[in-house]
Amino acid sequence: MTCSNNSIDATFTIRWSHKLRFTDSAFAKGDALDSLLSTLNPLKILLVVDRGLATSNQSFNNDLHKWCKRMDNICEEPIVVTGGESAKNNFDVVNTVLEAINNNNLCRKSCVIVIGGGAVLDAVGFAASTAHRGLPIIRMPSTTLSQGDSGVGVKNGVNYFGKKNFVGVFDPPYAVVNDSSLLQSLDKSQWRSGLSEAIKVALIKNESLFEEIEAHANLLLARDSDAMVSILQQSAKLHLRHITDGGDPFERLNARPLDFGHWAAHKLEQLSNYTITHGDAVAIGLSIDVLCSVRLGLLDKAVAMRIISLLETLGFPTNHSELTNPDFLTGIEEFRQHLGGQLTLLMLKGIEEPTEIHRLDYEVVRQVINELR
Amino acid sequence: MTCSNNSIDATFTIRWSHKLRFTDSAFAKGDALDSLLSTLNPLKILLVVDRGLATSNQSFNNDLHKWCKRMDNICEEPIVVTGGESAKNNFDVVNTVLEAINNNNLCRKSCVIVIGGGAVLDAVGFAASTAHRGLPIIRMPSTTLSQGDSGVGVKNGVNYFGKKNFVGVFDPPYAVVNDSSLLQSLDKSQWRSGLSEAIKVALIKNESLFEEIEAHANLLLARDSDAMVSILQQSAKLHLRHITDGGDPFERLNARPLDFGHWAAHKLEQLSNYTITHGDAVAIGLSIDVLCSVRLGLLDKAVAMRIISLLETLGFPTNHSELTNPDFLTGIEEFRQHLGGQLTLLMLKGIEEPTEIHRLDYEVVRQVINELR
Repeated sequence: MTCSNNSIDATFTIRWSHKLRFTDSAFAKGDALDSLLSTLNPLKILLVVDRGLATSNQSFNNDLHKWCKRMDNICEEPIVVTGGESAKNNFDVVNTVLEAINNNNLCRKSCVIVIGGGAVLDAVGFAASTAHRGLPIIRMPSTTLSQGDSGVGVKNGVNYFGKKNFVGVFDPPYAVVNDSSLLQSLDKSQWRSGLSEAIKVALIKNESLFEEIEAHANLLLARDSDAMVSILQQSAKLHLRHITDGGDPFERLNARPLDFGHWAAHKLEQLSNYTITHGDAVAIGLSIDVLCSVRLGLLDKAVAMRIISLLETLGFPTNHSELTNPDFLTGIEEFRQHLGGQLTLLMLKGIEEPTEIHRLDYEVVRQVINELR
Repeated sequence: MTCSNNSIDATFTIRWSHKLRFTDSAFAKGDALDSLLSTLNPLKILLVVDRGLATSNQSFNNDLHKWCKRMDNICEEPIVVTGGESAKNNFDVVNTVLEAINNNNLCRKSCVIVIGGGAVLDAVGFAASTAHRGLPIIRMPSTTLSQGDSGVGVKNGVNYFGKKNFVGVFDPPYAVVNDSSLLQSLDKSQWRSGLSEAIKVALIKNESLFEEIEAHANLLLARDSDAMVSILQQSAKLHLRHITDGGDPFERLNARPLDFGHWAAHKLEQLSNYTITHGDAVAIGLSIDVLCSVRLGLLDKAVAMRIISLLETLGFPTNHSELTNPDFLTGIEEFRQHLGGQLTLLMLKGIEEPTEIHRLDYEVVRQVINELR
């Protein structure tokens, strides 16, 4: 603390911890959860479950029900909320959880456990992070996308004014439990969804992960659980390491390296009224940005085609009718606004060779979109 | 980062800075603000002003208007919001600010400057802290209460479900500018309001500040600006030092030493429908807790009477009709809930001699309330 007559400058640090666990049948076995809860020792536990999971996965429901009976501090029946992006398009889910926290008299020594897809994790997380200025939350991502990517992160929030994640906070969860058995009930497009994010993080951080996805593409397409869990674990670890060791966990700087391909993905989701999955949108966003990398003279065309070809093999679309919507290109400016300051986009010089650019001409993107058609 | 097959534990730290400036006529002189803004270098500035100040302090309005003309990155006319606790009793102010942030395309490299009383700072702060997951905010507290106490802190939020600060976050402001000229238009009860918080922090942390308030009681009552500024500066510094050097800036532990006398104050404000000022409520809360300290055998009766006598000299009430409302005592449990975990209340063994207790019998409080009547 430096102090003069009219001025005080003080600094302080806050230490955060982040726990990531990999398990299967978490509620049947209990091991990972029980160990986390015995450390946290919450007074009360509020459970929130994604309706998509609750209605499609009966063995999960049974296990959850038995587990709840075994615990003596569950405050009521699990709250079931509707998942998908609509969970973030208004404040209904946030309010439902705030009301439950209030009705059950949860305090900051209580905790919320949320089991669901990324949108439910985001909306419920925002409620938990703001109730009493922050209750601990344990996230149990139920999709490949959230287990490998967003569920592991330190962000939450909801959409507002039609803008993605307009309202939210940075707030690390108490823990993230990746339960592979939750993935069994996913449909085909949800199953592949996490792989485009895994490819993204591999492209910027780990060539051997990219090669593993390529080598196991047919297994992944055939819903081989071991192949998927291996990819998701590596993706989650790379994601977490980026947050904890990357020097900018709360994204105060201009760059956002993990958002490779995401300016286009976010805008496309919005223009499609969220009818496209995030995984598919990221696949298209990656296709656009690797081709932009080629047009900017950064990346070899053959490498770009290898990446796009892998996305196609895995069943991802690499084109969309909304790409020719004149509004699509404003996604570049909206991406800049959300980060603030100078535009910073990641491009590729090669696999595991990212590079930053600070402008992207609309004309380059238009040419790339024509190329995709 | 410790890593096993099924488990990763990672920690990371976030560094926060906090800048506190003391000035007068900030918008006429510009020095403190200009210097802060040249460091922050925001792309755009959104100004939000408490209606109470805008309508009562014409010289402030003129100075603000001229200052805005001089700056080239103010995004529109200052937004004027209604202050007082009603600013926190619904989401209107929060929404007004979120809308302005959206309409003006503010990003995380922009900033919000809010000038107003504690309630306006809290509600506007919550909007700024959640828009785009957090815009920098410069707080200019316009009351003695907020200049000496809440405005300096790292908390924001609004009331919900009838509960004070039910929704909010911990998020340090970019800077706090205490402008003494803003205090000129305060009415009598607002003028004294910050002194009960100053007495509170003096009682737990600094006997010489308590003695200065005693020695200057008549000057303070006669609205001597120098006397007030001296008290508020010391109060603000003690408050800030508690946050930055106290080891628990985001209040993760059970104790909340700065909330001495506040369980009663918060409950009383709620029962009075916020017709009582926070300063007056704190004076009554302090009176209750020093008398409880006596009844618990901790504090000498003469010291308690010296404290209560000072509050009375400064014009504070030390009693209220709602103290006999049967609901009043539930404030103890609500205080425990908001902090979470075990009840921890501060009591006094002497001036600058706080001590913690973990239960407070309703009967003790009932006796004290009878004593106050």
